[in-house]
Amino acid sequence: MTTVFDNPGPDHAHVENSMLPEDSERLRRLYADLDRAHLMPLWTQLDDLMPMHPTPRSVPHIWKWSTLYPLAQSSGTLVPVGRGGERRAIGLANPGLGNKPYISPTLWCAIQYLGPGETAPEHRHSQNAFRFVIEGEGVWTVVNGDPVRMSRGDLLLTPGYCWHGHHNVTDRPMAWIDGLDIPFAQTNDTTFFEFGPDELTDYSTPESSRNERLWCHPGLRPLSGIHDTVASPIGAYRWEYTDRALTQQLLLEDEGHPGVVEPGHAAIRYINPTTGGDVMPTIRTEFHRLRPGTATQTRREVGSTVFQVFEGSGSIVIDGTEQQLDIGDLVVVPSWVSWSLQADTSFDLFRFSDAPIMERLHLDRTHLEGTTR
Amino acid sequence: MTTVFDNPGPDHAHVENSMLPEDSERLRRLYADLDRAHLMPLWTQLDDLMPMHPTPRSVPHIWKWSTLYPLAQSSGTLVPVGRGGERRAIGLANPGLGNKPYISPTLWCAIQYLGPGETAPEHRHSQNAFRFVIEGEGVWTVVNGDPVRMSRGDLLLTPGYCWHGHHNVTDRPMAWIDGLDIPFAQTNDTTFFEFGPDELTDYSTPESSRNERLWCHPGLRPLSGIHDTVASPIGAYRWEYTDRALTQQLLLEDEGHPGVVEPGHAAIRYINPTTGGDVMPTIRTEFHRLRPGTATQTRREVGSTVFQVFEGSGSIVIDGTEQQLDIGDLVVVPSWVSWSLQADTSFDLFRFSDAPIMERLHLDRTHLEGTTR
Amino acid sequence: MTTVFDNPGPDHAHVENSMLPEDSERLRRLYADLDRAHLMPLWTQLDDLMPMHPTPRSVPHIWKWSTLYPLAQSSGTLVPVGRGGERRAIGLANPGLGNKPYISPTLWCAIQYLGPGETAPEHRHSQNAFRFVIEGEGVWTVVNGDPVRMSRGDLLLTPGYCWHGHHNVTDRPMAWIDGLDIPFAQTNDTTFFEFGPDELTDYSTPESSRNERLWCHPGLRPLSGIHDTVASPIGAYRWEYTDRALTQQLLLEDEGHPGVVEPGHAAIRYINPTTGGDVMPTIRTEFHRLRPGTATQTRREVGSTVFQVFEGSGSIVIDGTEQQLDIGDLVVVPSWVSWSLQADTSFDLFRFSDAPIMERLHLDRTHLEGTTR
Amino acid sequence: MTTVFDNPGPDHAHVENSMLPEDSERLRRLYADLDRAHLMPLWTQLDDLMPMHPTPRSVPHIWKWSTLYPLAQSSGTLVPVGRGGERRAIGLANPGLGNKPYISPTLWCAIQYLGPGETAPEHRHSQNAFRFVIEGEGVWTVVNGDPVRMSRGDLLLTPGYCWHGHHNVTDRPMAWIDGLDIPFAQTNDTTFFEFGPDELTDYSTPESSRNERLWCHPGLRPLSGIHDTVASPIGAYRWEYTDRALTQQLLLEDEGHPGVVEPGHAAIRYINPTTGGDVMPTIRTEFHRLRPGTATQTRREVGSTVFQVFEGSGSIVIDGTEQQLDIGDLVVVPSWVSWSLQADTSFDLFRFSDAPIMERLHLDRTHLEGTTR
Repeated sequence: MTTVFDNPGPDHAHVENSMLPEDSERLRRLYADLDRAHLMPLWTQLDDLMPMHPTPRSVPHIWKWSTLYPLAQSSGTLVPVGRGGERRAIGLANPGLGNKPYISPTLWCAIQYLGPGETAPEHRHSQNAFRFVIEGEGVWTVVNGDPVRMSRGDLLLTPGYCWHGHHNVTDRPMAWIDGLDIPFAQTNDTTFFEFGPDELTDYSTPESSRNERLWCHPGLRPLSGIHDTVASPIGAYRWEYTDRALTQQLLLEDEGHPGVVEPGHAAIRYINPTTGGDVMPTIRTEFHRLRPGTATQTRREVGSTVFQVFEGSGSIVIDGTEQQLDIGDLVVVPSWVSWSLQADTSFDLFRFSDAPIMERLHLDRTHLEGTTR
Repeated sequence: MTTVFDNPGPDHAHVENSMLPEDSERLRRLYADLDRAHLMPLWTQLDDLMPMHPTPRSVPHIWKWSTLYPLAQSSGTLVPVGRGGERRAIGLANPGLGNKPYISPTLWCAIQYLGPGETAPEHRHSQNAFRFVIEGEGVWTVVNGDPVRMSRGDLLLTPGYCWHGHHNVTDRPMAWIDGLDIPFAQTNDTTFFEFGPDELTDYSTPESSRNERLWCHPGLRPLSGIHDTVASPIGAYRWEYTDRALTQQLLLEDEGHPGVVEPGHAAIRYINPTTGGDVMPTIRTEFHRLRPGTATQTRREVGSTVFQVFEGSGSIVIDGTEQQLDIGDLVVVPSWVSWSLQADTSFDLFRFSDAPIMERLHLDRTHLEGTTR
Repeated sequence: MTTVFDNPGPDHAHVENSMLPEDSERLRRLYADLDRAHLMPLWTQLDDLMPMHPTPRSVPHIWKWSTLYPLAQSSGTLVPVGRGGERRAIGLANPGLGNKPYISPTLWCAIQYLGPGETAPEHRHSQNAFRFVIEGEGVWTVVNGDPVRMSRGDLLLTPGYCWHGHHNVTDRPMAWIDGLDIPFAQTNDTTFFEFGPDELTDYSTPESSRNERLWCHPGLRPLSGIHDTVASPIGAYRWEYTDRALTQQLLLEDEGHPGVVEPGHAAIRYINPTTGGDVMPTIRTEFHRLRPGTATQTRREVGSTVFQVFEGSGSIVIDGTEQQLDIGDLVVVPSWVSWSLQADTSFDLFRFSDAPIMERLHLDRTHLEGTTR
Repeated sequence: MTTVFDNPGPDHAHVENSMLPEDSERLRRLYADLDRAHLMPLWTQLDDLMPMHPTPRSVPHIWKWSTLYPLAQSSGTLVPVGRGGERRAIGLANPGLGNKPYISPTLWCAIQYLGPGETAPEHRHSQNAFRFVIEGEGVWTVVNGDPVRMSRGDLLLTPGYCWHGHHNVTDRPMAWIDGLDIPFAQTNDTTFFEFGPDELTDYSTPESSRNERLWCHPGLRPLSGIHDTVASPIGAYRWEYTDRALTQQLLLEDEGHPGVVEPGHAAIRYINPTTGGDVMPTIRTEFHRLRPGTATQTRREVGSTVFQVFEGSGSIVIDGTEQQLDIGDLVVVPSWVSWSLQADTSFDLFRFSDAPIMERLHLDRTHLEGTTR
């Protein structure tokens, strides 16, 4: 695995550690004394603490929708949804991260399932959250009192500290994925949580939420919302717009004009319209569409990323190994692991990542195969 | 006229100037010596140089569309459009600014007229420009090679240094207003200009320009356009979206929800989607809609502002004097002059101003009647 | 004169204006009608309104200190200082700007003179102001109640809306230069002014002002001042620090290390420590030191700049013409006029300009001779 | 422990979990299936994953300098310093974080020890680092080729990707503390490391480093360094300036003027002079001085903080428990644990924290005892 440096020097494996003196009674006593005093030497741990490049404990992993959905269904049968447990959500646990429900060191991802007529009670928390809908319809999420329809292809936001609950108004169940920064909040001790009412504040089921009616007009901003907000005021990014934006990029490419991000690859980022930046301070969300037969340039990036296939089929090559992806499948790529997407058919993928954390702290870095930047 | 200060002290008129010694031969010689050396004393000029509050030379003024349009038509008959003169544009000259075609110290505003089949050749300049269409259709403006349809209610941008030309593809004339920062550029010596080809680079007449197809999807940003730009990449802000945004604000008000900027007053600002800020570094553009019978709160603001009535009728109260406004009428309000809009019917107005200059230099200030902030 | 463009096209002088139809009765009537309606055609004025590059009305000009100081002295004898006139300040009037006391379209510059024991009363205004001391001592300026010693080589700030007055505690007169953004404020109608008490709020004469004691510690910021401010909280930038910074840059150059801005040319910018940016929103202040025999690269810049010689002698080449400069001499360089400084002896110059206006509005542009950027 | 909310609702302990159905064969099979598929239910884990407020695994802990220094000395006798181990640094391991050398989830802190004549070889890494000197002198750290003297009370920076090595030019050992963001980099997989030459690039021992000579002039910025940098260009913040800044704040308080952060409490933040912000993107550094007999207001903050006593004696009250602190003692306060410093004598403390991470991601929050904000 190459490092980020143009002319990387030797790595730890090829540099002898000159700071490991011969074992002796006095040395053993020193190490015991250090241990008792809650101290640990750097020189015996440097390789682990400061590796040559990111060496994630998390591993690349694929969760098949064909496995996920039936398990969510079973939990729907066996486990009621309600106060205390709050959500019938099943977290994707990265096999490399021990017994933790973390898809990456920073991100939590779950399939959430709501049966016919069920309600998930209101609460709020410091963690930033989104939902992405791979199939189905019939649930409204109520965010700060504003009922938001959830439909296929929509991205729904509940940024930190927004009250929210969900209810299913149909006689069919619905499932979707949730994405939050729970691991980051937990590791860094930033989490706050508060219970709200058991009942939702508004059970109406409008086609458009109030935030959409106020904010979803391209290039326009309400004068009543002229102060920038930390997270996007848009609660629902509708599939209709995403699909149209991607379609237009590929049409522009057909006509010989700029628009796609690389040949055959259309992509949009969901943004906070008050700043043009990411929708929430810790989570980036994007949507990608590849033409049949195309592939993205192989790259590594600092930070973790997750893809969910929305439409079509193809594969992902992670660290040199190709794996098939079908609709609904979720795949996590840990930091600095190389990846490329390859499209069999027209291939649509939702993506989310911790990139805003990396960029705001100037830790971001990208390596494109065959180039260094 | 009240000043900005909560407890304003006396003004120049009520403070005796203790620095005006009795006339003497020696004093006259001093003043003559100063004059010869290109020097001027402050103490004899302080009232003019540093008044208690803005004392604009520009004056409030209304240009009636019923006067403007026929004069533009006449010029269409008498004056050909072409290279050298470049545009058949007639500037609105503020009566207070002497013999200058400036609507305010910072802004230029003109009615531009293009006859059937005519072409205005390509050029570019450092000045930021927009067009707003009060009536008609059939002209395409070609901005950096991208043909942009011009239709009623649309705001079209040509930010500084963009190549642009226009052509009328119909057998009817079309007129619209142009807004630029020509006076600001001229006064501060920032202007650059370059002639382009006499012929346009693209005579096609698409319904949507390429920039719209790439950028006009609410809350979405193309990954190929992820670097922020000084001016908006959107070349056309369509009436359809503006109208819908305003309609929704009033509906939300009907339903008892936030959205309008004050009771009965819907308003949007046109923005650069890469930053959420103003469309261009020197010019702010907005659209306002008032319900019949409502009025805006009376206010003063530092900086100049221009309104054009788009639909309906009403009046503006400037410095206490009410004046009737009809469709197409243009009115300029100089800095720190109080104003309020009053709607007879539903009342739609396009607005532009130099507010970004004031805000970026921390010179902005607003005084709402009955309050100080 | 070259333009900013790499391959500039023809200029107005070489492009025939095709929009000047033959004189006719109807045309004359149109023009008269336009005039009556406060309208002016663009096509007859384009050359003046939108020149190929900045064509300043202001001209390069030098004011000799040997002329300025005696005239200030005379005014000290003849004109009392006090309320109403406020300051015994004599403005440098650019010969190109008509009968206005403006050194440039944006900047006002004056020599101010305060006799033994005199007091200039307190006032405040929206205009940003600084003082730079070319010689003398013994005056304290009291800014928002904080007495600030004025000594040779010091830069003193009174940003917009700060209360300020001056008093001379010695039995000798003192003179210095004032710099303000009066023309910019006046042209753009942003000016506010308020009289304060006739007596100063504090007549003490400390060596260091309170703001210096709080803020002038390199790389440190008081926790009580952690919110950024629009203008610098530092009221006095002492010569001791400026001199030391320049000396070190030249020593670093002697030792073969980076530090100077070009060979033989040391320079610092005075900054707002809360942001690292310019001291005030509209005015940039710098200090330059050239080694004997060196010259700065010839350049043009958008915006106006003023130099005052502080020590040594040399010349400035403006638009190809060399002119001698001695201690205290002031020279203004209008926008886009080429200039280069040349040092006979070690040559120290204070500089101020309107660069923050240009940069914040994205109007800045620099052309280095032999290069385009 | 109160939460951040004004009227916090019940916490997990007082809310029954309605999502824990009776144990059954089918339920056990579901949970086993989830486990096999690398899935974990939220409803059984909510209390741990999303607690009501931060519940840090790290604990408050004090390391006595009287323990640390002798252990560092012993390691100096027993363990050579050199390539491979790189540094004779002993990390302070928070007892709550298991067997990890992390003082907090985000920060690493160590005592580093360099014997007479020893050299620590050059390397660089993505982690941001500083050193703070509690006693001694005689070591130079060479940062990107610039030798920087290390003396008592100095803060020295080696931001991410800067090459650095150290050497002791005296015949006495020297010890200091290192602070880095190793845990944050490790947890989030952002670490890069590169070995440099075994020998230092410059063995000279100047009193002042080149970066100090260029940058340490209050309120001034070299024109050659006008582009902002991610981390501070100042490599050494000298005790002389810190001490003077704190002394002046207390003198201003004596005189009845603003300056201290609260009564009897002087404090400065070390800043990046190009932005006025923190010295590095992930680490905040400050210095605090309390008058004898004073105490700081009790507060909780999101994020971890570390204090080291530099001079004097006093105590810290953490979560209601008071503990004595003497010179050199280090104490860590985990996120959202209440703390107050109390001074017996005049009490000087160096402080560092992960506050820039919290602020840049909008996760920061402070609760002052008796108030909510």
